[in-house]
Amino acid sequence: MIEQRKINGDLRKERTTCTFDVEELTNYLDGGAEVTRKRRKFVNFFLNDSSFKNDVPGEYLSHQELYEETIRKVCILFDKIKKWSILNNDTDDIYLYIWQYGIDTAIMKQNIPLDVHVTMFLPTLIGQGTPEQQSEWVPRALSNEILGTYAQTELGHGTFIRGLETTSTYDSATEEFILNSPTLTSYKWWPGGLGHSCNYAVVLAQLYTQGIHRGLHSFIVQIRDSETWIPLPGIKIGEIGSKFGMNSANNGYLAFDNVRIPRKQMLMKNSLVHKNGAYEKSSHEKLMYGAMVFVRVLIVRSLVTHNLFKSVTIAVRYSAIRRQSKLKSGNSESQILDYQTQQYKLFPVIATALVYKFAAQWLWEKYSTVTSELAAGDLKHLPELHAMACCLKAVGTADAAIGVTTCRLACGGHGFMNSSNLPNIYTQTTAAETYEGENTVLLLQTARFLMKTYRTVKTGSFSTSTTLSYMENYNDLKKRRWTSTLECMASAFYQVAGSKIEDCNLTIKRLVNSGVTQEDAWNQTSIKLTHASEAHCRAFVIDVYLKILQTSTFSTEIMKVLTDLGELICACWIINRLGDFLQFSNLKPCDVQSIQYLLEDCLKRIRPNAVGLVDSFDIHDNILDSTLGCYDGNVYERIFEEANKSPLNKEPVNRSFELYLKPFLKSNI
Amino acid sequence: MIEQRKINGDLRKERTTCTFDVEELTNYLDGGAEVTRKRRKFVNFFLNDSSFKNDVPGEYLSHQELYEETIRKVCILFDKIKKWSILNNDTDDIYLYIWQYGIDTAIMKQNIPLDVHVTMFLPTLIGQGTPEQQSEWVPRALSNEILGTYAQTELGHGTFIRGLETTSTYDSATEEFILNSPTLTSYKWWPGGLGHSCNYAVVLAQLYTQGIHRGLHSFIVQIRDSETWIPLPGIKIGEIGSKFGMNSANNGYLAFDNVRIPRKQMLMKNSLVHKNGAYEKSSHEKLMYGAMVFVRVLIVRSLVTHNLFKSVTIAVRYSAIRRQSKLKSGNSESQILDYQTQQYKLFPVIATALVYKFAAQWLWEKYSTVTSELAAGDLKHLPELHAMACCLKAVGTADAAIGVTTCRLACGGHGFMNSSNLPNIYTQTTAAETYEGENTVLLLQTARFLMKTYRTVKTGSFSTSTTLSYMENYNDLKKRRWTSTLECMASAFYQVAGSKIEDCNLTIKRLVNSGVTQEDAWNQTSIKLTHASEAHCRAFVIDVYLKILQTSTFSTEIMKVLTDLGELICACWIINRLGDFLQFSNLKPCDVQSIQYLLEDCLKRIRPNAVGLVDSFDIHDNILDSTLGCYDGNVYERIFEEANKSPLNKEPVNRSFELYLKPFLKSNI
Repeated sequence: MIEQRKINGDLRKERTTCTFDVEELTNYLDGGAEVTRKRRKFVNFFLNDSSFKNDVPGEYLSHQELYEETIRKVCILFDKIKKWSILNNDTDDIYLYIWQYGIDTAIMKQNIPLDVHVTMFLPTLIGQGTPEQQSEWVPRALSNEILGTYAQTELGHGTFIRGLETTSTYDSATEEFILNSPTLTSYKWWPGGLGHSCNYAVVLAQLYTQGIHRGLHSFIVQIRDSETWIPLPGIKIGEIGSKFGMNSANNGYLAFDNVRIPRKQMLMKNSLVHKNGAYEKSSHEKLMYGAMVFVRVLIVRSLVTHNLFKSVTIAVRYSAIRRQSKLKSGNSESQILDYQTQQYKLFPVIATALVYKFAAQWLWEKYSTVTSELAAGDLKHLPELHAMACCLKAVGTADAAIGVTTCRLACGGHGFMNSSNLPNIYTQTTAAETYEGENTVLLLQTARFLMKTYRTVKTGSFSTSTTLSYMENYNDLKKRRWTSTLECMASAFYQVAGSKIEDCNLTIKRLVNSGVTQEDAWNQTSIKLTHASEAHCRAFVIDVYLKILQTSTFSTEIMKVLTDLGELICACWIINRLGDFLQFSNLKPCDVQSIQYLLEDCLKRIRPNAVGLVDSFDIHDNILDSTLGCYDGNVYERIFEEANKSPLNKEPVNRSFELYLKPFLKSNI
Repeated sequence: MIEQRKINGDLRKERTTCTFDVEELTNYLDGGAEVTRKRRKFVNFFLNDSSFKNDVPGEYLSHQELYEETIRKVCILFDKIKKWSILNNDTDDIYLYIWQYGIDTAIMKQNIPLDVHVTMFLPTLIGQGTPEQQSEWVPRALSNEILGTYAQTELGHGTFIRGLETTSTYDSATEEFILNSPTLTSYKWWPGGLGHSCNYAVVLAQLYTQGIHRGLHSFIVQIRDSETWIPLPGIKIGEIGSKFGMNSANNGYLAFDNVRIPRKQMLMKNSLVHKNGAYEKSSHEKLMYGAMVFVRVLIVRSLVTHNLFKSVTIAVRYSAIRRQSKLKSGNSESQILDYQTQQYKLFPVIATALVYKFAAQWLWEKYSTVTSELAAGDLKHLPELHAMACCLKAVGTADAAIGVTTCRLACGGHGFMNSSNLPNIYTQTTAAETYEGENTVLLLQTARFLMKTYRTVKTGSFSTSTTLSYMENYNDLKKRRWTSTLECMASAFYQVAGSKIEDCNLTIKRLVNSGVTQEDAWNQTSIKLTHASEAHCRAFVIDVYLKILQTSTFSTEIMKVLTDLGELICACWIINRLGDFLQFSNLKPCDVQSIQYLLEDCLKRIRPNAVGLVDSFDIHDNILDSTLGCYDGNVYERIFEEANKSPLNKEPVNRSFELYLKPFLKSNI
């Protein structure tokens, strides 16, 4: 930690006004003081390594140079992961922490090409391989002797995986599968690391045996020679080109021209192709859910929460040191954090980060429970887990993208500079609105579950899903008198969600009765359906937060500030969707003023704790990686220092002057 | 134009379903068939020039290479501008067209370093120079014999220009000004082209003469030697480093250490420093408004409208050729444009683009009128112009940023690729939310005008501003019965705006009565004040659109589709702020269903015209610069072709394999 005397005076003052013990909240958020200690040790082990330092920051490199630098660092990172395990005798899944704490992105400012090797290639081998296949492949992948990617999406198909076109045709004569890419749109497109960083891939393809189409299956395919790295015969590989962000992820394309692989390289845990080509489906298709759900859980847990934490830490600290204009003439310039409009931008982001933090915790625990149940053959709670992962991923990433943008804009022009790190956090966050299930599609998947459950409940059955128990009583709740308390507001969210689901059901019924087909009726109700899913998600998130406050043991001071934040986020979300609450909840027009007042009052109450709150997120300066957000608040010195790292600032005159400008100017005299 | 047979079948079909004459609408939007003809000639003249072609697309270059390539192209562009003027005997302000049609961004994908030379340096010389100064400097700037930038913003101050710290102290002994940058925060920061592309700057500094502080004034300062381009003694220059976008703009920093310039290099049209240091203020400060307003008018007219046109053209065409999943089992995959949720994302963006197009036209005409009035010494309408430019810039750029993002997300993963051009359009658009007046600050400026006018009207006086005449009758309008017609909805927007302004006035009054100071009361009402400004802006924009429909002569078919779009945008904006309309307008809860129905019905009505509408925006393929948006719809071929331009795809194996990956893999066996 930097010496106290070097810390910006405004920030130092802010830290003295904080009403609660920052370390206590940090420990709570981590899950205990011991976890905080381990996390700090972990982060320092990885980030205090000078071999990750850049001579020139990544944003000044060419696309190709950036890739080369990424590979250099990735190899160091993977070696360090092994070293950490050995040194600390740590058998946990280290990569999960790398991801959760944002170490990979701290090193490259972006996702790295071998993410997919760890988060998808390896889990697929484990999840879909037979015991023999696992013993052959998993140790090689685990030790990084081979590097793999997961090739599902194609140029022409992302969302609708049944439409994938890559084929795998079994040839019983040679006991091989023959892989082909029959069209340009069948080219695999997007897999991370596929461009130049992997020699293996799990490939999803339409299986044909005995002349019969057997649906999508997964195959292990070697794509590059391990000695020369040259693509194997019949295989076309490249990277997909420059993107909005995540350019070090090396997303690639892949096409097959009669590529043969042995029979045993189809992953056969769930279905079997015999030597003669006979096909046998062995297990429940719903088990496929599990793996898809896992990545969505990770997105909510790591990406949504972490990127909101980072952005709002940067913006709040900057707003404490930035002084601009005067609230009162005669006084000195005001900290921009004292402007009501600035508080209104930033404090709800703090609250948003926390409510998703707790919701992600619920989701993570639910995932563990359901995984155990699945292992015991119990599929009962899988649809609920799936539905909640879908809407939390969709609403969470959308809220995170908006939150990060709000933080960036709240930093004015300086937020537009890459040295603030806010642009980079944004591109990373918004990418997750699309990948691993496009958000609108996910909301409609949740909606299917909601509609189904709603109809079940209406016929008198009870729901087995605790997240949907409100369907039984949301109309009764409307009879209560409004008070602007957390409990009352949380209840209003359920009233809105329930009413919206009811309205969707009615709309579809009405359309079908008027002669529209079921499928068209669904499409014609889909705007409303996505809104119903969103309302359900928000009601759930608020409820989880409320329950945390009701069941955890905090100090009085922390309870107070967490209550302030809870009231703030409820008030904000209600005001932003006021029409819904006026139509569908016990909120009356005469109560609106009290909500607006509550909102403004929360901003005032949170003001002295704003810096303390972001400090409690305890993000290492190297992870923030921001000139505006560092713990010491020496913003202007850092901005200037970073600017001077631009290669253009190494020479007083760029060569383009002699080459182009000078002749141009002369010609104009 | 590309031959018909090469056009994607889906797009070809879409074009046959269009109900109106695309060329008629194009001509209307241009301002007549003659303007369309000239625009096309102009665009072709600039864009059909192979010297603007890239060997390697800009996104693969390093920061420095990108800059050098930019300067090469800028010199060609400026030569071509002269050539056009001569060839066509065209005395118009050519650069305005370059900007309006997006030619500069088409050439570099980004703003160019000499934008500021034309849009700010030159106008400031003209606007603030005496006739003698003008005759000395303007011809040299106009012929590009010297290249200038406009240095106002500093590292520590953007919004609050009175806080700028650069000093200019008059030394009557030598009849010179001495420029100094007393602190790091006083460094000029952000001026476009300042980094390495200009040898002159207009510098804003705090003037001191005879030991007295005289406030901010403008000075012409040479910053680089014209022969060697080396920064002059006492001058420190560099670029500010990498940014979210607009990296070819070469934004720079600048500091002075006792730099002396002759007395005649202070721009003295509005105030004078005599040889002996005596200071004389000659004219009205409000005249400074004019120049600031001009750039905001340009932003609404060019950037907001044009970037929405481009984005929605790309997204609609892509959605017509992209097929994904099936609306009806058994059928072939559906065009994603047939999904209600996709229509709900895109069609409102078409409407948004058009309403701002018309509002910008109003603003442009208002600007011309007020400029003439100013020349005649009449300042009456300046505050209204200023207030409208502020809120239209703020709400327009915010809506544009959201619209562009919506289009990008609607294109799924492919929208994230830079070859879609959507990321680049976004960074350009969102930058305008901050520059030339941060949006929240601008909304509060409009709010000041609204509050002042409101109080005037309440005391019985009439407003001289036609945009505010609704303040006299918004409460009466609430008595009318709701019908979901354009007229009724437009009136509701005024009811909401008026009521929100009234509420702000009441809130401030109440606070002041309770003992809060006027200044604190303003701050504590500022969330509401920004919302009131926004409501005013939307009411105005809708009203302009309605008046265009009422007063222009369109064919029946075009009138129909423009009415569809008008109803759609009203319905969308009402639903998005339903709470406001339920509280403050004649809309009753029982009317809400009819608005939702209208919205959905508009989507259906617009569906057959979607491609026709974006075709009518008539954006040249080279300006769209998008693999997803080209007129012919050959999306997948273009994506693949662009991907292969990546330098990483020029070799089968990147050098990082031998350098890093191979040793790493070997060590893991």
